[in-house]
Amino acid sequence: MSLEHFYYPKSIAIIGASNNPAKAGYQIANNMIRLGFEGEIYFINPKEDIIFGKKAYDSLLDIEGKVDLIEIIIPAKGVLEVFRQAEQRGDVRAAIIMASGFAETGIPENIQMEKDMLEIAHRAGIRVFGPNCVGVMNTENNLDTTFAADIAQRPGGMSVISQSGSIGAAILMFTCDQPVPMGFCKWGHVGNMSDVTTEELLKYYRDDPKTKVIAMYMEGMTDARSFFETAKEVTPQKPMIVLKVGRSEIGSVAAASHTGSLAGADKVFDGAFRQTGVLRADTVEELVDTAKAFSMLDQLPKGNRVAILTEAGGPGVISMDEIGSHKEVRMAKFSNETNARLKEILPPMALISHPDGYVDMTAGADGPQHAEALEAILRDEGVDAVLLLSVPPTFLVPPAIAEAVNSKMPLAKELGKPVFACFLAGNWIKEAHIMMENNGIPTFEMPQRAARALVNMIKHSAYLRDLQIGE
Amino acid sequence: MSLEHFYYPKSIAIIGASNNPAKAGYQIANNMIRLGFEGEIYFINPKEDIIFGKKAYDSLLDIEGKVDLIEIIIPAKGVLEVFRQAEQRGDVRAAIIMASGFAETGIPENIQMEKDMLEIAHRAGIRVFGPNCVGVMNTENNLDTTFAADIAQRPGGMSVISQSGSIGAAILMFTCDQPVPMGFCKWGHVGNMSDVTTEELLKYYRDDPKTKVIAMYMEGMTDARSFFETAKEVTPQKPMIVLKVGRSEIGSVAAASHTGSLAGADKVFDGAFRQTGVLRADTVEELVDTAKAFSMLDQLPKGNRVAILTEAGGPGVISMDEIGSHKEVRMAKFSNETNARLKEILPPMALISHPDGYVDMTAGADGPQHAEALEAILRDEGVDAVLLLSVPPTFLVPPAIAEAVNSKMPLAKELGKPVFACFLAGNWIKEAHIMMENNGIPTFEMPQRAARALVNMIKHSAYLRDLQIGE
Repeated sequence: MSLEHFYYPKSIAIIGASNNPAKAGYQIANNMIRLGFEGEIYFINPKEDIIFGKKAYDSLLDIEGKVDLIEIIIPAKGVLEVFRQAEQRGDVRAAIIMASGFAETGIPENIQMEKDMLEIAHRAGIRVFGPNCVGVMNTENNLDTTFAADIAQRPGGMSVISQSGSIGAAILMFTCDQPVPMGFCKWGHVGNMSDVTTEELLKYYRDDPKTKVIAMYMEGMTDARSFFETAKEVTPQKPMIVLKVGRSEIGSVAAASHTGSLAGADKVFDGAFRQTGVLRADTVEELVDTAKAFSMLDQLPKGNRVAILTEAGGPGVISMDEIGSHKEVRMAKFSNETNARLKEILPPMALISHPDGYVDMTAGADGPQHAEALEAILRDEGVDAVLLLSVPPTFLVPPAIAEAVNSKMPLAKELGKPVFACFLAGNWIKEAHIMMENNGIPTFEMPQRAARALVNMIKHSAYLRDLQIGE
Repeated sequence: MSLEHFYYPKSIAIIGASNNPAKAGYQIANNMIRLGFEGEIYFINPKEDIIFGKKAYDSLLDIEGKVDLIEIIIPAKGVLEVFRQAEQRGDVRAAIIMASGFAETGIPENIQMEKDMLEIAHRAGIRVFGPNCVGVMNTENNLDTTFAADIAQRPGGMSVISQSGSIGAAILMFTCDQPVPMGFCKWGHVGNMSDVTTEELLKYYRDDPKTKVIAMYMEGMTDARSFFETAKEVTPQKPMIVLKVGRSEIGSVAAASHTGSLAGADKVFDGAFRQTGVLRADTVEELVDTAKAFSMLDQLPKGNRVAILTEAGGPGVISMDEIGSHKEVRMAKFSNETNARLKEILPPMALISHPDGYVDMTAGADGPQHAEALEAILRDEGVDAVLLLSVPPTFLVPPAIAEAVNSKMPLAKELGKPVFACFLAGNWIKEAHIMMENNGIPTFEMPQRAARALVNMIKHSAYLRDLQIGE
């Protein structure tokens, strides 16, 4: 049975919805109402008559309409009774359990309670997220079963799996903060995985036509073999980026306490991620940056040869450092014609192909020179992708450069060569970043972040090519 | 002769000031006028009568008042004549040369031109920044000889040395973007260092009473021995953070082209930085984050024992990973009393001292619990610094937590224990970060960045203690 009933329920019953703003049950109800979930919403709380203007039911059994999905916000001890009621109803297909206090505590009676819950669930055909989870989001039908704050639902290509509700929410807040909010598709926090596992959710995203790229925050895995086997089935279909924490010894102890799963030897994970085509991110920023690139672009670079076109030396050097530390990527080597053309276009002080693939136009370059140099580089057959950097001086306003660069984007798309950009810094360049993102150029806050996202995209593209050769 | 005439000139003559917004000479004039430089400003351009409402002189020789500092924005070939005029005047003490095209080109006649320029300068007692540099800034007298855009001058404790004008400007733009703009003290870009070197500027900052911390962006060094000997003299007096790029091979080639200095073997640099007490930053973010912590706080942690107090597991694990990867820092071990007190204060699901020094209060913790737990940890004699993390759920609004935390800051200051904070994420927590920064808590965008800045502060503190023991 698929996870459709979690992500596309026709109706949801929220057991423990509340009128008290200090309770999670209030915030979840608020999120569902505020976002305008497209299905039926039922609130259940025997102590209330009305919640958010809707009738509050005493029990699941009192609801006359059909109930697809239930979300249980009440403490652990009340959960079994809810499952009994769900079984009695016969229509419930999916359940999200927020409470902790089950098998993860190691206490025999709690372990038994989880067993009993699962027994009913299996018998009644109910799939379970949790315990100890905040559930799901889906921007297609405005579903949000979490108590996360301030998240705007905007459709996008990235789907998220998080082993931490808070980091999962933070990822979405960062997506809202991009120059052009990148949005997301689906989001899931599976908690203790008594039933639905990370692996099953990964496969669901793989098969989901709306998901373009999968971003995952991981603290540990219960079954490494199963995880990597799944990853190997996912990555040929969709890029998968994982921020796996617990790198250091004490970090992994903390991770194990938090999610109850073993962190394991970090270097072994590194190798396994690489072999299964998973892009491992070091930071939340890298996770979001890389997912943004995949979610914005429909074409992967055809090869691994990068050109850097910069208006300022410092950002150029910083991004070269990043490019130079990944053996899967190399700097492009321009043809003699391209070098000659660049010399013709650019100010006399410009540094061209020194080192190969690197062009420092200097602060003397104006908007048209940016555009013409970009065109010359895009047309070079030795170039697969371009990284464009600038610290616009006051006499060259950022939107003017953005406009010049944007004028070459039809050509870039025609040639299938991605252009990544980073202008520095602060509010000074914000409008330029928005203009470029609206034209299909992913932009980044810092040059090394732009370079890393591009490197990740090239790694994925190379992984796919290697698979084809291997076939 | 000191560098006072660069940073505290009574008057400045700008040779090449312009009314044409497309020229650097316009933007520099604009910056000086816009910021309201406190001394006399003279504009020199024989083609103009009036620039920014002020008389434009034909030549340096026409200025009747005294001229302390000259900034030369005209092309290289005109520079010698300006120096001859400056010598003839006899009052000029300092010169900033923006043009490139001197010794760095390797062309014999350009090398000779630089020699001739320096000969006059030495004879006339004129110190030189550059060639190929944008000069200085000083927030004390609103001096800005650069053409950087959009930089608000606000006094702060950080002074900057940059080998890239653009990254140097970007650093300041990031300081403006902090929750509470952190400001800066002095800024310098020495360019090709025909006369004034990085080392001399470092010593000037070391002796400058307004500078609390030195942040440096470095692409290479011409004389490594001299640099590290200077660093060794600076770091016992003031913390010094260096972002040294050119880590990878191609990155170092690009760096050498940009600044004309050798990048050298990166691991050797790593060791030399450590031995001379320099904090090496990996990114611009880390450079600014760390400088912010030093510039905000007057007390260093007394030891290396860190406690993490978090409301959400994910950020806790991420920061533990960072702490765990630096051998100079370790997690605190609470006393039995502290553990008992935390158990009393916090929700039953809270994870206390698992691992040591780590407290996950869980999303159930309210404002008063944040405050009381922070107090209990601060009072523990085994704790030297606290890292506070939160992903505030909607039912616990960020400013309420900030207020609770702020109430314990008088205690933290009394005990001399720094508190660092990171709330996640986006606009949702911005006000809380501002409130905390106004109470002496440096805040950071991401948990690993907060942890890294704290680690750096602890490393500096440990370096100073080791020096004392060595004496």
